[in-house]
Amino acid sequence: MSDYQEGKSRWWGWGDFDQDFDLNERARLAPYLKKNIGVDILSGKMRFAAPTLDDIELPEPRLDAEILRQLEGMLGKDNVCQDKFNRVSHSTGKSYRDLLRNRLRRIDNPVDVVVWPHEEEDIVKLLALAEEKQIAIVPFGGGSSVVGGVEPRGTDAYDGVITIDLGRMNQLLQLDATSHTATIQAGAQGPYLEEMLNEKGFTLGHFPESWRHSCLGGWLASRAAGRQSTGYGKIEEMVISVKAITPTGRIVTRKVPASAAGPKLMDILVGSEGTLGIITEATMKVRPLPDVFDYSGLLFKSFGAGISCVREVMQGEVRPTAIRVSDEAETGLAQAWRLTSGKHLKHKAEDIALSLLEKRGYSFNQGAFMVLGVEGGKAEVAERKKKLLKICRKLGGFYLGAGAGMQWYEGRYDNAYLRDQLINYGIMVDTLETATTWDNYLHLYGAVQKAMQGSIESSGVKGIVACHLSHAYPYGASLYYTFLAGMAAKDEEGQWAALKKAASDAIIAAGGTITHHHGLGYEHAPWLPDEVGREGLRALRALKQTLDPHGIMNPGKILLD
Amino acid sequence: MSDYQEGKSRWWGWGDFDQDFDLNERARLAPYLKKNIGVDILSGKMRFAAPTLDDIELPEPRLDAEILRQLEGMLGKDNVCQDKFNRVSHSTGKSYRDLLRNRLRRIDNPVDVVVWPHEEEDIVKLLALAEEKQIAIVPFGGGSSVVGGVEPRGTDAYDGVITIDLGRMNQLLQLDATSHTATIQAGAQGPYLEEMLNEKGFTLGHFPESWRHSCLGGWLASRAAGRQSTGYGKIEEMVISVKAITPTGRIVTRKVPASAAGPKLMDILVGSEGTLGIITEATMKVRPLPDVFDYSGLLFKSFGAGISCVREVMQGEVRPTAIRVSDEAETGLAQAWRLTSGKHLKHKAEDIALSLLEKRGYSFNQGAFMVLGVEGGKAEVAERKKKLLKICRKLGGFYLGAGAGMQWYEGRYDNAYLRDQLINYGIMVDTLETATTWDNYLHLYGAVQKAMQGSIESSGVKGIVACHLSHAYPYGASLYYTFLAGMAAKDEEGQWAALKKAASDAIIAAGGTITHHHGLGYEHAPWLPDEVGREGLRALRALKQTLDPHGIMNPGKILLD
Repeated sequence: MSDYQEGKSRWWGWGDFDQDFDLNERARLAPYLKKNIGVDILSGKMRFAAPTLDDIELPEPRLDAEILRQLEGMLGKDNVCQDKFNRVSHSTGKSYRDLLRNRLRRIDNPVDVVVWPHEEEDIVKLLALAEEKQIAIVPFGGGSSVVGGVEPRGTDAYDGVITIDLGRMNQLLQLDATSHTATIQAGAQGPYLEEMLNEKGFTLGHFPESWRHSCLGGWLASRAAGRQSTGYGKIEEMVISVKAITPTGRIVTRKVPASAAGPKLMDILVGSEGTLGIITEATMKVRPLPDVFDYSGLLFKSFGAGISCVREVMQGEVRPTAIRVSDEAETGLAQAWRLTSGKHLKHKAEDIALSLLEKRGYSFNQGAFMVLGVEGGKAEVAERKKKLLKICRKLGGFYLGAGAGMQWYEGRYDNAYLRDQLINYGIMVDTLETATTWDNYLHLYGAVQKAMQGSIESSGVKGIVACHLSHAYPYGASLYYTFLAGMAAKDEEGQWAALKKAASDAIIAAGGTITHHHGLGYEHAPWLPDEVGREGLRALRALKQTLDPHGIMNPGKILLD
Repeated sequence: MSDYQEGKSRWWGWGDFDQDFDLNERARLAPYLKKNIGVDILSGKMRFAAPTLDDIELPEPRLDAEILRQLEGMLGKDNVCQDKFNRVSHSTGKSYRDLLRNRLRRIDNPVDVVVWPHEEEDIVKLLALAEEKQIAIVPFGGGSSVVGGVEPRGTDAYDGVITIDLGRMNQLLQLDATSHTATIQAGAQGPYLEEMLNEKGFTLGHFPESWRHSCLGGWLASRAAGRQSTGYGKIEEMVISVKAITPTGRIVTRKVPASAAGPKLMDILVGSEGTLGIITEATMKVRPLPDVFDYSGLLFKSFGAGISCVREVMQGEVRPTAIRVSDEAETGLAQAWRLTSGKHLKHKAEDIALSLLEKRGYSFNQGAFMVLGVEGGKAEVAERKKKLLKICRKLGGFYLGAGAGMQWYEGRYDNAYLRDQLINYGIMVDTLETATTWDNYLHLYGAVQKAMQGSIESSGVKGIVACHLSHAYPYGASLYYTFLAGMAAKDEEGQWAALKKAASDAIIAAGGTITHHHGLGYEHAPWLPDEVGREGLRALRALKQTLDPHGIMNPGKILLD
């Protein structure tokens, strides 16, 4: 079942309607924001009130009654919907640009109808109809794209837009406990997928920040990475085979652990973001549920010291399940975000410890906070953790204990809610990410930070740029930037677009990838030519032309022309 | 420098001219072959004498003097060669079919000229000339293909064939000791590549059976797997980025540890076997040279027991660097192949141990031999080995000690020589391979074995079909078959082709992949449609048409039309 269909999810922001932070429980936040962003959230002045559906003007759906009848005949009335809530909630993802436009009461590119297929044959028929009538198709998983992956684009060239919500194709089809593989339908969202696997003693091990509101098909289509990717791999490393429906047919890759039978077709579909077809199911690698989830915190004197430590860890014998280091700015931001009162407060004693720490040269204001996660069997985890901490301590890490790690672990899906609250107060807040090899890490880190800071300053506001490393490899790691700045008085979208362009140009110039795990959508698509070159583009266009000759599949994404 | 160019390699068989086994040192072999294959190698009757170049009739090269002059002007006279040795040695690979035809004094599809580029720009010019003149291009690495990957095909449609030998583009361009990556030219062959890396304290960790006579570009083009792939990964898991020249341009993928920027172009080039362009260099993951190479042997009572053990090992906490299990037939064959005299004999004491073993129900004639390899730091290896042996023993493995493992390790590049000797005696001997998931492993094992045995019997000869597992994953493993049979009195090639077809059909019917690491060439190409389906073929054809619009790149491979 789709979250939206049940009406429990916000169409104008992240997650569930009933969840918000009580900012009064975090007394350090307001002074921090006032000082660094120049926005006083205690003044009570809100930039935006939460929009209601009545605020939104939506044009009539473009699809005529005859097509609607055909869709209802094909899928049943319950699986075809044109109501305002569903059209609006399926017309954007969750990027800053999306949330901003929602608050500005703008739905720039409304879908005309949302449909829920129940089986592959439904999708085959939908694509055939769309081809015949020249209707654009947007595949929709959890709708959590932060790069414009699910927003209809360039749809004037089509006679309408059908969004195919995969939410009702969400079953575990087969759990092969011998081979440690599971065949799962693409629409299975994180919690339900894990529930089905956990029942049989397994886990997928893929837990992105969007986990509660994203699904297998979306992860595969966008090459997602979970918080434990350091131990369990990115989604493209977890997949054995996929099944996809394209407008011209069906691709089923072979369920084998490895092959040398020519170019790897699966890696054309994985990452194609619905532009070639719709991934309907996949056979995934699964692993036995770990007994122990051990997350602890460490503090380093600088981001550089933390980075060196991650590199040494990743090039050593024993791999953590998760390892992340925040730079000085993010460590400071997290400190400002910590609970200071309220029913959840467990760590008052830490404040006393903090002053002791500072005497030894470790500070949450000028240091780098690390989370180290180890999952597995009890004895194994103890052994691995011991070896990992030995390296961390050798390289200057101060062990803060399990409390600091578990605090991060428990809150790991919640931070997206804060974004909505800050936006309402008139703060531009967004994230972007890249990856590079170790030799280039600090160079890229500095160059992109400088570009972003420069863009913030040139828009005449105050702001901060924070960064963390959260997906590590022996050869390099990701960089994940968060920026907060005062929202421009007018053209808020232009302010953001200028910063995004500055950051993206800097990423490419410094040798990074335009995206490590968010995907391209349309927001990153302008940098694809830098990523793959002229020949690469020609190859991608040829695939598009071959598998989707009428260009109905998620137009305007990945390839802009 | 190319092996062939130096004249030190056999054009009609495997490896170096000066290497052969003294079969007198292996007294068990002759009776074994007589009993199981029906061929008496002691009779002194040879089916074939080694061919000489004088035996071979070669047509005049088809390229006219003008083109030759252009090539010489482009590359220099030393890098353009039409002599008989080079034309012959570059006209086939090392499949059984190749070795058989060599002995039958047949070069079915001779190349017209062999050229050695020194830099990318040379290749750009060569492809431009070939396009202009409609000349076929065959990229050539070590020439060790066992699937017909380097033999010119369908060349009547072209005005000639240029084989581009990458042997003089073999340098280590950059060793990044911080990121553990190395940028290496495609023509670097195994030993030289390792020498360059070892000097800096690193290794690639890729050691296929062909290692001494194959190169990086060939490994990437054919998705090769080394003997230590269980620990270090297949070649496609070791590559960070590639540079390739196609007839229409250049593709350089980004040097980043991971990316979500759309479909993964690198995985189109890797596995493309020279049909889209020529991989000229790659940035590879490297790792510090291990201190310890620990290989030991174990014996299981059956192949089934050994397989169960590998599965449990691979799904456990600690991974071996290499693990392989021979089935009963291969364990018996290896036993027949063991030294019984001669200067290399070190293991006479083992014979005594053998009879003791049999009393406990373990036999080399009805058991399954396992090699377990662990590489790394000294303490780490000891710890991992202890944990691995615990699982092996629990599942019925009898530990034979390091001697048995090191014997395999030391001889691991030599067995290919034996093939040439047996062929000369009139024995059809070849290998083929696949992979599947664990749930399907024994089913596929039996089905393919039965198909091969049936084909041998229907050709009216005696023979054996042996198998081992040598590349293991948590989700499944490879199956590597070796077959030996009496050569048919006539149409030896047809005898082999019938068996190959029976085996390949059975692999596909039983759910395996047509190749786990040998590649497609033209010998496996007929089964590509089964592997990728109609839509997959359309996608691959579109890539070919786009990157190689005149179809000059390695025609007749992968895609047959």
